[in-house]
Amino acid sequence: MIRTIVWNENIHETTSPAVADLYPDGMHGCIAAALNREEGIEATTATLQEPEHGLPAERIAGADVLIWWGHAAHGEISDAVVERVVEAVWGGMGLILLHSSHFAKIFKRLMGTPCNLTWREAGERERLWLTAPGHPIARGLPDHFELENEEMYGEPFGVPEPLETVFVSWFQGGEVFRSGLTWRRGAGNVFYFRPGHETYPTYHDANVQRVIANAVRWAANPDARRTGVTDAPNRPVADALEPIEQRGARLHHDGEDGFR
Amino acid sequence: MIRTIVWNENIHETTSPAVADLYPDGMHGCIAAALNREEGIEATTATLQEPEHGLPAERIAGADVLIWWGHAAHGEISDAVVERVVEAVWGGMGLILLHSSHFAKIFKRLMGTPCNLTWREAGERERLWLTAPGHPIARGLPDHFELENEEMYGEPFGVPEPLETVFVSWFQGGEVFRSGLTWRRGAGNVFYFRPGHETYPTYHDANVQRVIANAVRWAANPDARRTGVTDAPNRPVADALEPIEQRGARLHHDGEDGFR
Amino acid sequence: MIRTIVWNENIHETTSPAVADLYPDGMHGCIAAALNREEGIEATTATLQEPEHGLPAERIAGADVLIWWGHAAHGEISDAVVERVVEAVWGGMGLILLHSSHFAKIFKRLMGTPCNLTWREAGERERLWLTAPGHPIARGLPDHFELENEEMYGEPFGVPEPLETVFVSWFQGGEVFRSGLTWRRGAGNVFYFRPGHETYPTYHDANVQRVIANAVRWAANPDARRTGVTDAPNRPVADALEPIEQRGARLHHDGEDGFR
Amino acid sequence: MIRTIVWNENIHETTSPAVADLYPDGMHGCIAAALNREEGIEATTATLQEPEHGLPAERIAGADVLIWWGHAAHGEISDAVVERVVEAVWGGMGLILLHSSHFAKIFKRLMGTPCNLTWREAGERERLWLTAPGHPIARGLPDHFELENEEMYGEPFGVPEPLETVFVSWFQGGEVFRSGLTWRRGAGNVFYFRPGHETYPTYHDANVQRVIANAVRWAANPDARRTGVTDAPNRPVADALEPIEQRGARLHHDGEDGFR
Repeated sequence: MIRTIVWNENIHETTSPAVADLYPDGMHGCIAAALNREEGIEATTATLQEPEHGLPAERIAGADVLIWWGHAAHGEISDAVVERVVEAVWGGMGLILLHSSHFAKIFKRLMGTPCNLTWREAGERERLWLTAPGHPIARGLPDHFELENEEMYGEPFGVPEPLETVFVSWFQGGEVFRSGLTWRRGAGNVFYFRPGHETYPTYHDANVQRVIANAVRWAANPDARRTGVTDAPNRPVADALEPIEQRGARLHHDGEDGFR
Repeated sequence: MIRTIVWNENIHETTSPAVADLYPDGMHGCIAAALNREEGIEATTATLQEPEHGLPAERIAGADVLIWWGHAAHGEISDAVVERVVEAVWGGMGLILLHSSHFAKIFKRLMGTPCNLTWREAGERERLWLTAPGHPIARGLPDHFELENEEMYGEPFGVPEPLETVFVSWFQGGEVFRSGLTWRRGAGNVFYFRPGHETYPTYHDANVQRVIANAVRWAANPDARRTGVTDAPNRPVADALEPIEQRGARLHHDGEDGFR
Repeated sequence: MIRTIVWNENIHETTSPAVADLYPDGMHGCIAAALNREEGIEATTATLQEPEHGLPAERIAGADVLIWWGHAAHGEISDAVVERVVEAVWGGMGLILLHSSHFAKIFKRLMGTPCNLTWREAGERERLWLTAPGHPIARGLPDHFELENEEMYGEPFGVPEPLETVFVSWFQGGEVFRSGLTWRRGAGNVFYFRPGHETYPTYHDANVQRVIANAVRWAANPDARRTGVTDAPNRPVADALEPIEQRGARLHHDGEDGFR
Repeated sequence: MIRTIVWNENIHETTSPAVADLYPDGMHGCIAAALNREEGIEATTATLQEPEHGLPAERIAGADVLIWWGHAAHGEISDAVVERVVEAVWGGMGLILLHSSHFAKIFKRLMGTPCNLTWREAGERERLWLTAPGHPIARGLPDHFELENEEMYGEPFGVPEPLETVFVSWFQGGEVFRSGLTWRRGAGNVFYFRPGHETYPTYHDANVQRVIANAVRWAANPDARRTGVTDAPNRPVADALEPIEQRGARLHHDGEDGFR
């Protein structure tokens, strides 16, 4: 059972009637419900408004995959939660960033780049093309699928070269975007998936739900969470795997922490 | 002319007689002198102790490549300088991280990973093997070269999968390490090169000097520094490249900044 | 159940008493037996001496993963079998190349490079280090493990930059080698794993068996084999997803095959 | 001076009046003339109809970069010339594949994949977006540029994951395509660039000419051509870099060729 947390800032659902109408249980509720219809996935939700944004240490410790949707409140995420999530990813927790989460602190922190793009909120047509047809995240999908109303995101997308490009989007207004990209950070699999503007019914779309479920399975790492992921252990001379002798000047003692 | 800054924390040169003996002008002085013997490269130095660590905005603006050596004082680098360097890299400044700079704030910031490793200061033999013989950074080098005394760094090296692996090191005590790795971050080329513990004469070695000069040429981006590297411009509907009409609910106005 | 074929040229097992003593059932028999002790994997064997090298079309069609061990008889593999295997990989069959199979026709065909290296048959110590500790192929392994007697393979290894580097080897005689590398070709996952010289008991080693079983699970693609993997279909103007009109001179008719 | 050969099958220029009108000197003549207006590039042409397709061994030996345009006559290229070109690439010759050359023997040989795609010859609008704005191949280009009439190529494009994605195309009829992709094969830089159907004036376009000139500079490797690129030398025990002794059974003698 892949334990999945669907996190949402849950703001426009409570302030915009249009969004509330589309997602009476929030986008997190819609996504989690779709995942809970999948075999082998168990999804719960968390939101910004809960203590520690719903992501206390023990909950992160018990998650296989975290899905993130943020937009209006990127700046309100506490640094402690950001570091908790990032360290969990390094230790093996899968992470899926949706749509406007390209500007989430956790994504920028893991990428080391601005993660910027161009955009337009016109409800235009988006068509996603599979560029890696045999990829696990593309499982069961047609070679392309459409979302009749979406926000446009345009290239250049300010991210590091990905491990693999899984989807590229065509937009009615003339732009393109690499809509599905994978990276690994430490033991953690990271996937960015573009669609999902809150004023459109994107997360009710069957193909979008298929992508997210596939991504959950792809991102989940069945190993136990790795610990000590930031350690830099000293290997004393006496314990070397091949016999060597100490030579030259030294700045450090055996077993010390070193400089960080 | 490739304008190169060789930055060094310059601490053990002033506190350890062994280091001072090896590098009377500092490691930065040794590296800069070697670079200034190369055609087309103009190297200057900067150190931690100078105002703004020797890296005020106008100096970074005029640099093609920054070489970084830090160890004991990673924590003393001001966040303002870190952000200045990182943004310059995104805009096209080349960055070369030497040895213990794997834990430099600027490197961890650009990688999004812990950048950790195992280590041993025993003056053991290191042998670097070329794994990408035709790479510009390997130009003019033999298929392998040795450093008789070096600190050991061992795998796993906590970095993202690189664009290319240029060198892998063999250590006398039994470890291996990916010693030369490249990444691109925005318009900036980034190279990590492992050797260079301060208690050994590594930066006097002709092959090491060759690698660093090659890396400077590889990392330099002849284009003007890119500006606005974190911008995320709105593209108004009226300016769309293909004719479209506004549809659906809106959260944003034309031309607004969006959420960050 | 992952249907796995372990293919071996099976030559030195029948001509060298030393090899026959180590592997009375052949290396293929040893590897298949280890895999059949794993949950969810069903391994059979095939050898050069069988009709169509034991790999007729219907058998390849029903395989999830093919493991390949070749050395003395690379040139004897029929081109028809090579193309059959290669096309199956493009369609989603996993492929694991062991040791001297770096020079197998199928590997060179899929890589597009010489796949060469340096080598020495001295029974020296090899130590494999994990460079991607959270990778599925590294599951359950210690951070390093040793093979007391192995053939040396040295860098440079003439392959394309991999998707991920999972292992790097240290050799007693002073060389290093990227011992575990992944690529994707079409829908097929490809893994090269270095150890396994026939005069040493490598495939009896528990860590080596763990790597191979992990690699089988990683390489298996649960989707149906993709067909038409070399098709280049014409999309007639009348069927365009967005309305367009024919403009300009034409060399082709709607629906024709095009040039290949 | 970067010695560049522009190769063209030169067929539709002589059989189609529409193509002959657009390119009275052939597409090769048009491209070479544009390159010869660039500082530091010296371009000559070669065509299918010449002996050895205009690519005898000494000419390939003296080339820094080869540009290739093929379409109707892929099958007529002699295997000897294919192997000559491929080995030159491994040794450091740059290679630029244009448009329908996705199906050229040399490209499929270097990629190890089908290199297939979907297509439509409707003279529709193509818009190329830069996805790697700081890349040398994108130097001096706007963030996007248009070709009013082009053949459509659609994803999925059957190639290995590239080193970097430089351009992605938008098509009027609704498709997208990764239009500029880089790989390294041995010491050789390889670039595929999509535009250039022979019935449209694409190679007269200033932006297309800029891309090709940039790609020539990017692909050129100033080192001497590497020789022995397929060698797999034996390293005798007596010459080991670290002292080792022969152990275990042997199948090979010191210095022998090994099996291929």
